[in-house]
Amino acid sequence: MGRRSLPVEELFEHARAGDRAALARLLSLIERGGDDARTIGRLASPLGGHAYTIGFTGSPGAGKSTLTSATIGHLRGQGLEVAVLAIDPSSPYTGGAILGDRVRMQEHATDPGVFIRSMATRGHLGGLSLTAPEAIRLLDAVGREWVLIETVGVGQVEVEIAGKADTTVVVVNPGWGDAVQANKAGLMEIADIFVINKADRAGAAQTRTDLEQMLDLSELADESWRPPIVSTVATAGEGVPDLWDAVLAHRESIIGNGVLAERREARLRDELRAIVARRLEQRARDICGGAQWDDMQADVLHGRLDPWAAADRLLETVRA
Amino acid sequence: MGRRSLPVEELFEHARAGDRAALARLLSLIERGGDDARTIGRLASPLGGHAYTIGFTGSPGAGKSTLTSATIGHLRGQGLEVAVLAIDPSSPYTGGAILGDRVRMQEHATDPGVFIRSMATRGHLGGLSLTAPEAIRLLDAVGREWVLIETVGVGQVEVEIAGKADTTVVVVNPGWGDAVQANKAGLMEIADIFVINKADRAGAAQTRTDLEQMLDLSELADESWRPPIVSTVATAGEGVPDLWDAVLAHRESIIGNGVLAERREARLRDELRAIVARRLEQRARDICGGAQWDDMQADVLHGRLDPWAAADRLLETVRA
Repeated sequence: MGRRSLPVEELFEHARAGDRAALARLLSLIERGGDDARTIGRLASPLGGHAYTIGFTGSPGAGKSTLTSATIGHLRGQGLEVAVLAIDPSSPYTGGAILGDRVRMQEHATDPGVFIRSMATRGHLGGLSLTAPEAIRLLDAVGREWVLIETVGVGQVEVEIAGKADTTVVVVNPGWGDAVQANKAGLMEIADIFVINKADRAGAAQTRTDLEQMLDLSELADESWRPPIVSTVATAGEGVPDLWDAVLAHRESIIGNGVLAERREARLRDELRAIVARRLEQRARDICGGAQWDDMQADVLHGRLDPWAAADRLLETVRA
Repeated sequence: MGRRSLPVEELFEHARAGDRAALARLLSLIERGGDDARTIGRLASPLGGHAYTIGFTGSPGAGKSTLTSATIGHLRGQGLEVAVLAIDPSSPYTGGAILGDRVRMQEHATDPGVFIRSMATRGHLGGLSLTAPEAIRLLDAVGREWVLIETVGVGQVEVEIAGKADTTVVVVNPGWGDAVQANKAGLMEIADIFVINKADRAGAAQTRTDLEQMLDLSELADESWRPPIVSTVATAGEGVPDLWDAVLAHRESIIGNGVLAERREARLRDELRAIVARRLEQRARDICGGAQWDDMQADVLHGRLDPWAAADRLLETVRA
């Protein structure tokens, strides 16, 4: 019997024992959704809470992949294992590709201490917002302690997912207006750490000034933490140890003052709320194709019933 | 007893008899939503089907208000009565203002044959998409035969509402790229007629060529109607009779080939679907604040239940 046809429970045990192919298969099942995904959630839920997630976000071309790759290298140098989830809403289908087009990370492809996975939308709107937390819960449950979440761009879904990491790193480049663009994309609110990558280029000092000014004008989400600004040249690995020190300092701060626990609770509440909304959307689609639909529609078209009254009657016929 | 405290049924009868203040009051009740709005829908629904709606949309500054005002003047010259619904999602509150900031239309303010009304969102997302059809249904029920719908800009909601008129007029200006911008805003798909307003300015011929080329490349929603392009200088009233002739020609075409009936059916179906979705959203909010919510949330936070299972249990406790 091939691995593809193993029951989910067995795949889960294999993944817990360190089987990377089983883990990849489970992530594919989460992306696909449905009963198998629900089983995985049920198995993973009681086992989590140990992983620490770090989000990397910023405009395309800012060097996030290179920085993520350099961070992986730094962690591996300290003997730590790493999982990377690359969030790519623009790609219609990842097909279980382990690396996708993330060429920069190829250097870690054969390292058994590194697990890299791309996730795309698979067609349904808002899909990634719901599947990313499930994927993180699974990585947590199978014992991955450090999970890096990298977004391809700064789309709404990507910013939302990166912003829900325990520590969120916002990557900008030197040059006029990049800090302002980051502000417009909603990145000021979610940043725990700023990175000025490609800091050997002209304008790095100005970008730092811009960021400091915007921080002066912003209301900090966590008053005891003003996001530090780290300069890096990710292609040369420069500044990466500083970035990691900043991540650890932030981690210590939010563990100490209870913000980490608050954030994780808020995240689970948001997730539960989003799932309730999704379930009701599905129900709405069922109603709008169901047996009563044609009758009610005809009543509305002929003015026998106004649309609101028709909607109420349709909703009476079903349980949510 | 003042008019404000008249029962809805009486207000409705007054409005049917031509009382403009009663009509304005009913539109305010529709904007406010709730039981009174539902009563108005129930009263209006059987009486409709006679009004013809014409949407005017295009970028801010294209001259839509001036063109709408000139069109009103043209129709009044023919002894026709007109109602105008100005859709303004950016304004948080219209407060029953009859003209709002639509200075251009002031000239018609004292004309008893013209009824002008601004509608804004009143805070809830998607509100205008649901209230605009109700407002149109009411104007229809009280005997307004020509209803002009003007949008302030080309936001998603505005394009959606204007695109659901019987005839949709898309207004562009001469100048490089305006036709391309219209295409990007999704206006090509909804246009039944294009107007190049301010056609006395440089670049009008090029804009016409751009539009023709885009039409050549587009798939027409109604194969028997290629949207004509009308040139106007609305401030001087130039081209307005041509625009009105184009509207009447389009009207004749879609009455003749059944497209009007199809569009109106599709519109009612969409509205019913949107109301079902809205009702379920309300239900989702109720669930996420209800008695069971705290228990389920605690179970999720402590890993006793995964979020999907918790959502299912919450949904079992209520009827949609």
